[in-house]
Amino acid sequence: MTPPAQPVLTADDPVVLDLVAALPPGRVVVDADVVRSLSRDQAAGAPAGEPVAVVRARSTDEVRRVVETCLRHRTPVVARGAGTGLSGGANAVDGCVVLSLESMAEILAIDPLERLAVVQPGVVNDDLRAAVAEHGLWYPPDPASSPWSTIGGNVATNAGGVCCVKYGVTREYVLELEVVTGSADVVRIGRRTAKGVAGYDLVGLLVGSEGTLGIVTEITVRLRNLPSPPITVAGFFSSLVAAGTAVRAVGEAGITPSALELMDRYCLRAVDDWKQMGLTDAGDVLVLARVDDAEPTGTALADAIVEHFRASGATWAERSTDPDEGDALFAARRLAYPALERLGPVITEDVCVPKQHVPEMLARIEALAAQHDVKIANIAHAGDGNLHPLIIGPSDEDAELWPRIHAAFDGILAAALALGGTITGEHGVGLLKRGGLVDELSPAVMELHRGIKAAMDPAGILNPGKVFQ
Amino acid sequence: MTPPAQPVLTADDPVVLDLVAALPPGRVVVDADVVRSLSRDQAAGAPAGEPVAVVRARSTDEVRRVVETCLRHRTPVVARGAGTGLSGGANAVDGCVVLSLESMAEILAIDPLERLAVVQPGVVNDDLRAAVAEHGLWYPPDPASSPWSTIGGNVATNAGGVCCVKYGVTREYVLELEVVTGSADVVRIGRRTAKGVAGYDLVGLLVGSEGTLGIVTEITVRLRNLPSPPITVAGFFSSLVAAGTAVRAVGEAGITPSALELMDRYCLRAVDDWKQMGLTDAGDVLVLARVDDAEPTGTALADAIVEHFRASGATWAERSTDPDEGDALFAARRLAYPALERLGPVITEDVCVPKQHVPEMLARIEALAAQHDVKIANIAHAGDGNLHPLIIGPSDEDAELWPRIHAAFDGILAAALALGGTITGEHGVGLLKRGGLVDELSPAVMELHRGIKAAMDPAGILNPGKVFQ
Repeated sequence: MTPPAQPVLTADDPVVLDLVAALPPGRVVVDADVVRSLSRDQAAGAPAGEPVAVVRARSTDEVRRVVETCLRHRTPVVARGAGTGLSGGANAVDGCVVLSLESMAEILAIDPLERLAVVQPGVVNDDLRAAVAEHGLWYPPDPASSPWSTIGGNVATNAGGVCCVKYGVTREYVLELEVVTGSADVVRIGRRTAKGVAGYDLVGLLVGSEGTLGIVTEITVRLRNLPSPPITVAGFFSSLVAAGTAVRAVGEAGITPSALELMDRYCLRAVDDWKQMGLTDAGDVLVLARVDDAEPTGTALADAIVEHFRASGATWAERSTDPDEGDALFAARRLAYPALERLGPVITEDVCVPKQHVPEMLARIEALAAQHDVKIANIAHAGDGNLHPLIIGPSDEDAELWPRIHAAFDGILAAALALGGTITGEHGVGLLKRGGLVDELSPAVMELHRGIKAAMDPAGILNPGKVFQ
Repeated sequence: MTPPAQPVLTADDPVVLDLVAALPPGRVVVDADVVRSLSRDQAAGAPAGEPVAVVRARSTDEVRRVVETCLRHRTPVVARGAGTGLSGGANAVDGCVVLSLESMAEILAIDPLERLAVVQPGVVNDDLRAAVAEHGLWYPPDPASSPWSTIGGNVATNAGGVCCVKYGVTREYVLELEVVTGSADVVRIGRRTAKGVAGYDLVGLLVGSEGTLGIVTEITVRLRNLPSPPITVAGFFSSLVAAGTAVRAVGEAGITPSALELMDRYCLRAVDDWKQMGLTDAGDVLVLARVDDAEPTGTALADAIVEHFRASGATWAERSTDPDEGDALFAARRLAYPALERLGPVITEDVCVPKQHVPEMLARIEALAAQHDVKIANIAHAGDGNLHPLIIGPSDEDAELWPRIHAAFDGILAAALALGGTITGEHGVGLLKRGGLVDELSPAVMELHRGIKAAMDPAGILNPGKVFQ
């Protein structure tokens, strides 16, 4: 890890001068500190290049003008929302223009009958959630970053979250998009009707494309009714493998909880050390489930989950009778990541394996940690088989540790693929997993990716070098 | 409408000779009657060309060899399943090879824990449904053609059906595909894990691409648990608009039934004339709803739907207390299409509009029928806003009627677009709606389609001239 170099910012750069001429005053920023602060996302260990400027766009037409100008100069455009990504997808590349969409943060419409909302890309996930709740509606995708991350960024990465085990990921909720393509065309793709098969599914193609196929300037999302108040079940286990077995047992029983999360002893210890919640007194591995079915089904399912936890060897398992208690447990789940970050840079893994292999994958992660002598904490959307092994980096510059971390990282990817899984369940490829992508997809599929990229972005100016090269 | 010309079939055609050499005995068929019978789908009024041969493939490698051979000769390949399509998407083009996938009809795996099944493309929808039901599982997409249509065809058209109002369309259930591309590469796209964002969503791109981007040779579908036994609600209304208002009222109340179907007086009359079910004695327009929520929620929602029907002006509305009665009503719904076909060729429309515009769209269809003096019956997946106006063609060759039918057809597409809808909710573009597609999508979006087509099928041999030209 080398410290980031001082960005070279020249207000007399030809593309910068053209951007200033094409946009209203104040949109183009070359201040070194601002530019540096917007040059990377939250991926520890991912390189970031040096932009020539940041543009804070305020409208679709401004985005179009940015792309048009950059296209003329063959200047890369790296779009970003809140920068909460975890794979380097929003990191600057050398000589690029960073296009911040955070100022396009208006909720344009909420339609309770059609159960949809129309938003600009900079709307924060939790803000949308709060706005639609006033109409009794719900936008389900709930990445851990929801208090900060934007819907545009969620679309770019096809963000998941805790509720996806029952309600699916961002892709399932995007109906229509307004997009600026790499040719600086403003296009509308998708539709607002419940069904529609007129032409190819370009919306699906854009969702999760990490800014490489187009820049999303407006999003129409599908909403659901607010679910019933959740009932929480907690179970403590003495080993990761026992916890994984409990998760599998719930799946085998055909139960679909609205959350099924796992935290290991490292996470519990880190939260306790920070917040003194007493979690480690209760056990080594915590599995949290939620059900939100209408009563009396909800309680019956919750009780069934308790029984499956106990039959899988839980040292303690109960259905919470107090909503506040359930909320506190899920708050601990959300605190795990920042608690671990107090210990050093956190390299976040994001593999996803078939549910039947969750115990085996957890065992392999433990073995890799021992083999490479690195600390790996585990939080997981376990019900989806989506595991987030968190490798704790050195708090100081310990040059020796990084090669071991990279070896463990690569080992986790290889293990997931060997078990029929994927290198990334919800965080995206960005920079960190370009090697893993080539291991997951065949050369012919990679070639299809390049062809599609060329169709949407003929000059290759949109977030070049991300996802694949 | 001109009668189909006699196909020109020459077993000494160079591509046919090469196919015979490349494939096991019996795969290549040039018999004129067989070839003619496999040269079109069920779209009335769509032209069909003359193939040089039919190939009945039995494996992925045979499909690959067909594409490889045709690629060498630049011969078009038109893949087909059961040929139940309604837009001409599987119609032959002159000089093509028709590639039938009906013999690839094996269910390769059913995995109750992962809730997925792996099937060959020729598996019939209802056969898959029956096989997974033995494991307590359910494959939801239920096009009216489900007793005959194949999963491969369902994937190619992104088929919908009755249950989609609650459970979504085929797209939502396809996890992984094996595909032979236009370059004769066999690729696997998608994944079997619950989540995954490694690369672009090529599965979504293939689903609904009507054989123009690749030939699907294996499909992994997601399954659900079998739902609770349904409760049926029936309501009769004195006008289409009143029925449309009832449908909207259910949506406004935030109720998601598992079916919400509409049949107008033409349909009821046709079914009565055929099967003497006495439907027309009960009223003019029938709206059928189903709920499959666990009790007691199911009965409460059914009763609420009855109240909404009555408040919207139903002349009669009741919750069925007898499952057989409910099944009989839905059987009548399924009989509507064949009953109308007894009156003449049926030109099936498939527009989808926002739910709020269902009453207005139904009113415009009535006005278009009067204006052009054509008979239009309406069945509709009304809860989705997906309407199937059925234009009844002449039982004999009434040359005068066809221009009026085409004018009404075009008028319905234009009305749907004017109301913010789409030209096709679930049947696809095929041949019949290529003009409508250009009206729905912008030139820039059409250009993206051409670029993607070129990436997946560089030589343009896969179902050329379908969807767009």
